[in-house]
Amino acid sequence: MSRFFSKKFDNLTPYTPGEQPKIKDLVKLNTNESPYSPSKKAVRCAFDAARELQLYPDPTCQALTQKVAKIWGVDTDEILITNGSDEILNFAFMAYCDENTPAVFPDITYGFYKVFAQLLNVPYEEIPLKDDFTINISDYMNVGKTIFIANPNAPTGIPLSLSEIEEIVKSNQENVVVIDEAYIDFGGESAVPLTKKYDNLLVTQTFSKSRSMAGARLGLGIGSKELIRDLNTIKYSTNPYNINKMTMAAGIGVLEDEAYTKKNCKAICETREYTKKMLLGMDFEITDSAANFIFAKHKELSGEMIYARLREKGILVRHFDGDRIKEYNRITVGTKKQMQAFLRAVSEILEENK
Amino acid sequence: MSRFFSKKFDNLTPYTPGEQPKIKDLVKLNTNESPYSPSKKAVRCAFDAARELQLYPDPTCQALTQKVAKIWGVDTDEILITNGSDEILNFAFMAYCDENTPAVFPDITYGFYKVFAQLLNVPYEEIPLKDDFTINISDYMNVGKTIFIANPNAPTGIPLSLSEIEEIVKSNQENVVVIDEAYIDFGGESAVPLTKKYDNLLVTQTFSKSRSMAGARLGLGIGSKELIRDLNTIKYSTNPYNINKMTMAAGIGVLEDEAYTKKNCKAICETREYTKKMLLGMDFEITDSAANFIFAKHKELSGEMIYARLREKGILVRHFDGDRIKEYNRITVGTKKQMQAFLRAVSEILEENK
Repeated sequence: MSRFFSKKFDNLTPYTPGEQPKIKDLVKLNTNESPYSPSKKAVRCAFDAARELQLYPDPTCQALTQKVAKIWGVDTDEILITNGSDEILNFAFMAYCDENTPAVFPDITYGFYKVFAQLLNVPYEEIPLKDDFTINISDYMNVGKTIFIANPNAPTGIPLSLSEIEEIVKSNQENVVVIDEAYIDFGGESAVPLTKKYDNLLVTQTFSKSRSMAGARLGLGIGSKELIRDLNTIKYSTNPYNINKMTMAAGIGVLEDEAYTKKNCKAICETREYTKKMLLGMDFEITDSAANFIFAKHKELSGEMIYARLREKGILVRHFDGDRIKEYNRITVGTKKQMQAFLRAVSEILEENK
Repeated sequence: MSRFFSKKFDNLTPYTPGEQPKIKDLVKLNTNESPYSPSKKAVRCAFDAARELQLYPDPTCQALTQKVAKIWGVDTDEILITNGSDEILNFAFMAYCDENTPAVFPDITYGFYKVFAQLLNVPYEEIPLKDDFTINISDYMNVGKTIFIANPNAPTGIPLSLSEIEEIVKSNQENVVVIDEAYIDFGGESAVPLTKKYDNLLVTQTFSKSRSMAGARLGLGIGSKELIRDLNTIKYSTNPYNINKMTMAAGIGVLEDEAYTKKNCKAICETREYTKKMLLGMDFEITDSAANFIFAKHKELSGEMIYARLREKGILVRHFDGDRIKEYNRITVGTKKQMQAFLRAVSEILEENK
């Protein structure tokens, strides 16, 4: 750090993104990307937009917002489009947490919540998941804090039901509840319909996973008009042109191709269930993931060793250091062929360690 | 605002971006975009990148950073690539201003500096420009605050010389000096070479103006390794994948086409001088702009009236409300043909008001 760096960041530990290595023929199962190409419509729209790059993008994202409104069944003023869902999460921390209103989230969840709290010098509490990694919703009743819950949770993939989400939202009507639905399209139940009923609910989603657009950086928040107005105030005080023209166009394109998205999600869910079954047969314990990844631990072998050996074999999964999860690996669900390569490598590792 | 919105934003007035209207055949001279298409290389690179949108972008922006390093003549660890220059400015406010270190900038300058200060609850001081809208550099000697200066300044277009910038940087070695060079490619002298000599200097630039990429959102900061390390800490705690794949690729493409950029800048400068001369002949007072815009006031007619009448004639310029500048309009330099249409409209307005 330079001698000029503000002391307020003394306790800040930045987020560590998953590796984006430039190794040929790697089976990349570490950052929950879609194994499928982006929609051809999205690519074509992005190209057309690139030819007019000399002009600023529409800061209101009007055309894309209208598409989202139609598909998600909400009004345009109940939507904010952001530069990935990290941006809407950051905006929500800014808008709804401060020294008087701490943040609260599970001890095992998306690692960025803690980083945002540290970045903004906001007090935060981490509530331990139960031993089976499920959320005990009674821990979240009337907590008097701004709640952040990933549903399905990461890196476990375990979802809450819509009625459980509703209980949490209902019992915290004096605080905002943020439900981060980055992985909702792989089997969870979205809380978007509840935003009509509860003005304290903000649902965030992303185009990175189910819509094959991680490289485009496109996310969104859905909530009451009043919440979206707050978040727009933050946006127009941070980066009014937050969505570039090409991403905006690609977003419109992919939403004109919903059948392609649905087909890919279905394939990923089927491949996930196949991979789960195979891992269970090889003495792994796995959480009941409703996401596009599997969280798995071998009954005898160390998680770190499995991670390292897989990497040597050209297969990259994600390993986390946290005490409660260090025996696990998070494996993105790729194509069936990729998962077969992964399973072959796992079975070789088991053989080596007999 | 919702009842949940943090009270810390009570005094926040968001930035108002220039209009991006969807009117056909408008002569758009209001947001300092380039009138020239993006480089064909940039468009081609963006298209190629769009076909791999399912993967996250490289969070380190390695390939683009290497290109910038070569062209700007600095090391890769002296560069941070950002989502427009607004993002690097925001990061600099976060990193180098706090309750103990206020920000300072001219009273007439890029409107976003004040918004960032308000957003972050940072104390700030606005130093009045002289009556002729120039910066009195003696006002900035040893001020004990983090300094933000746009060079050339906006919306006046008036540049400081490199030796004036150096005096400011030299006399403030215990504070960071940010020189915002959004418009540097139209005649100013860049302070980038001074970053080798002064570890308290951060220079910010953008691809939005001279490189015809406003729609892509690409900016950068150049400074000492230590400053860039600070700013990376902020980046990795805010939005690690801040540059999408298509923008990153387009940035690489345009840097392979520097001759095209230089040709466009030259044309814009020539058109600016032509337009200045014509306006002087029509009783306008103009600042000596070294940017891709002209700041002009008529000796008799109201700035707001001229703005409104131009708009009715399908020509959009930018008008600001501030007391000292409300008789002026800021006119982006377009193609010669666009400027001739603008000058014709102006001459009609003068005729109407004889």
